[in-house]
Amino acid sequence: MADSADTGDDVLLTSDRDGVRTLTLNRPERKNALDARSWVALADALRELKRDRDVRALILTGAGDAFCSGADISVPEDVHPRYKLDRLTDVALALHELAIPTIAKVRGVAVGAGWNLALGCDLVVATPESRFCQIFTKRGLSVDLGGSWLLPKLVGLQQAKRLVLLADMIDGTEAHGLGLVTWVRAADEIDGFVDDLARRLADGPPYALAQSKALLNDGADATLRQALANEARAQPGNFATADSREAYAAFATRREPEFTGRWASYEREQEQ
Amino acid sequence: MADSADTGDDVLLTSDRDGVRTLTLNRPERKNALDARSWVALADALRELKRDRDVRALILTGAGDAFCSGADISVPEDVHPRYKLDRLTDVALALHELAIPTIAKVRGVAVGAGWNLALGCDLVVATPESRFCQIFTKRGLSVDLGGSWLLPKLVGLQQAKRLVLLADMIDGTEAHGLGLVTWVRAADEIDGFVDDLARRLADGPPYALAQSKALLNDGADATLRQALANEARAQPGNFATADSREAYAAFATRREPEFTGRWASYEREQEQ
Amino acid sequence: MADSADTGDDVLLTSDRDGVRTLTLNRPERKNALDARSWVALADALRELKRDRDVRALILTGAGDAFCSGADISVPEDVHPRYKLDRLTDVALALHELAIPTIAKVRGVAVGAGWNLALGCDLVVATPESRFCQIFTKRGLSVDLGGSWLLPKLVGLQQAKRLVLLADMIDGTEAHGLGLVTWVRAADEIDGFVDDLARRLADGPPYALAQSKALLNDGADATLRQALANEARAQPGNFATADSREAYAAFATRREPEFTGRWASYEREQEQ
Repeated sequence: MADSADTGDDVLLTSDRDGVRTLTLNRPERKNALDARSWVALADALRELKRDRDVRALILTGAGDAFCSGADISVPEDVHPRYKLDRLTDVALALHELAIPTIAKVRGVAVGAGWNLALGCDLVVATPESRFCQIFTKRGLSVDLGGSWLLPKLVGLQQAKRLVLLADMIDGTEAHGLGLVTWVRAADEIDGFVDDLARRLADGPPYALAQSKALLNDGADATLRQALANEARAQPGNFATADSREAYAAFATRREPEFTGRWASYEREQEQ
Repeated sequence: MADSADTGDDVLLTSDRDGVRTLTLNRPERKNALDARSWVALADALRELKRDRDVRALILTGAGDAFCSGADISVPEDVHPRYKLDRLTDVALALHELAIPTIAKVRGVAVGAGWNLALGCDLVVATPESRFCQIFTKRGLSVDLGGSWLLPKLVGLQQAKRLVLLADMIDGTEAHGLGLVTWVRAADEIDGFVDDLARRLADGPPYALAQSKALLNDGADATLRQALANEARAQPGNFATADSREAYAAFATRREPEFTGRWASYEREQEQ
Repeated sequence: MADSADTGDDVLLTSDRDGVRTLTLNRPERKNALDARSWVALADALRELKRDRDVRALILTGAGDAFCSGADISVPEDVHPRYKLDRLTDVALALHELAIPTIAKVRGVAVGAGWNLALGCDLVVATPESRFCQIFTKRGLSVDLGGSWLLPKLVGLQQAKRLVLLADMIDGTEAHGLGLVTWVRAADEIDGFVDDLARRLADGPPYALAQSKALLNDGADATLRQALANEARAQPGNFATADSREAYAAFATRREPEFTGRWASYEREQEQ
């Protein structure tokens, strides 16, 4: 797949490069605060990703010097509260359930729903200067966009409560120490690091990655017995892919495997 | 609210200061070990707190040089085992479900049920010299007062088993490193630190804090889908409070908000 | 109990010493990779342990310079996939539910199912040079042997995904920092350390340890309310053992207790 130009509507830019899609929140003058249009654009982009067979990894980031400052409180919202909250739930679930690996690249602030959007990605890369805040209670609001699920399971209930009840601002280094950032990289290295990371994930076996991601997502809330049953159901499917065959062939001949995500039966037909 | 004198019965002291209640376990000659009277006093004090509209944060601590040495094994217990175990369950649940933020201030030992009482608070502040032990198996007993829920979710099953199966004693610094203490402060600074912390929490928006705390408590055991539904149900309630209006007004004019916990409709009536 | 000689069939060695059983994966020429015979031998050994009243702690380790390199992919497997996956599930559940404390002693590699076998033990001791990898996706497979349950609950979903989706190799020191290794000890100290640890556990009160282990296992997936009910049901059983009496007697006279795991009623009859 060749590079494609940015096609995006103004609030969310989309670009593709060799199977890696980048979605960029694009309201830099508002530190990429999420207005009603942004939620719809995110929901649409994630729905489209779910159908796209050629994209094998996602980078989610923000334009300019911020990741996302949270819900935009400077503009009147849609008059129906239920409409907006349904949108948030859609976006959080769609991001969580996306079959491909997702990476949040965070420069600058990630605040409120903006931080929880980053935490909803599989992996988070930030700079030491990134700043994170569960701002909700400072606005007289309660935590949303999945923060009540993400935080207790990532850092335990005690630290989750410190972050939410006090709305403390922490930097990238502290967030990394707590387990809320996977890697910290300097501002002039983060782009290269995230590109390499997305490359590795996009080159991986798509079916095994999708299965593993879903198993981990589900295992976080399952009993061991349930998790083992899920794993035992998932594994035979991998043996039906060309990628497990390819992995063993590559291992045997000490070369790097090339994963395609295809069924083994399709590959066998092509060989005949 | 002015300062009130200690009113407490002898085993549990109660004092109030500007919306912050302090409960002090008060059997210093026994390192505040919990006898039958202590469990009843704690259960009563927590029940009273549930009804009190003026208290906005709780500090739980121990008199003298200890937090709590656990269940008192030097005195004969009530003859009905079920009675005592029901009391423990009552106290652990009431503390967990209290709508206001709770802080454990730990000096000296926090052992067995005493440690789990501290962990049942939202936030834990200790000194470097504090000493913590899940003493149960050394007494031929199994973990109680919620330790079997708190420990695996705060530090993971492996570290939880080390602490419980070996009954190792650890100090405040190690406990902080493991995520079982939120902050460590020197012995001559801990009082001031906890007072400031309680002040910040008591000045916060009571409804948004209560909702956020309950969402995090529930999110620890929920699926993401359930947590998102809980969050979406909670958020509109915050918009019905005067505090979310006040937060936005203060944000717009760059001043500190003053939160009251009242309904917006009540505030509007007062203005007319 | 005196030392017993190794009795084991060739793929799994068994030895006993004063109530501590050691199971040693024994295919050192294949870095103890698990072939079909190994799974059966492990399942049998764990079933036998469940019935043995004299063994009070388990050490699981590998022969030579490796713990376990995972499922052996160099040999043809049983032709029935369901058969093998049932075996894995059996082993993972039996290890998890074993009533006695279990320790993994890891030297060298612990890879794929081999790593998750170690993580299925209550405590993990490794050397700084140990190497760990969730190799699955590199083989075109999804995570198994309970990794989808163990990893999110030990290190949170974000770090779990890094380890599984990227199949990064990490050493003992990093694994310890993440909370996936309980203690790191130098290669020439690990045997002595693990022997002392197993000794302490084997000398503990067997019933209270079994109850505590099961409570923690279950608490990881329970609500606080459920965990408290489990704890309240478990505690009276401990009071029926001679060990809780012995613990209190030893405490009162400041001597070390001697735990037997017997009912108190049996001890009282012996005294008469």
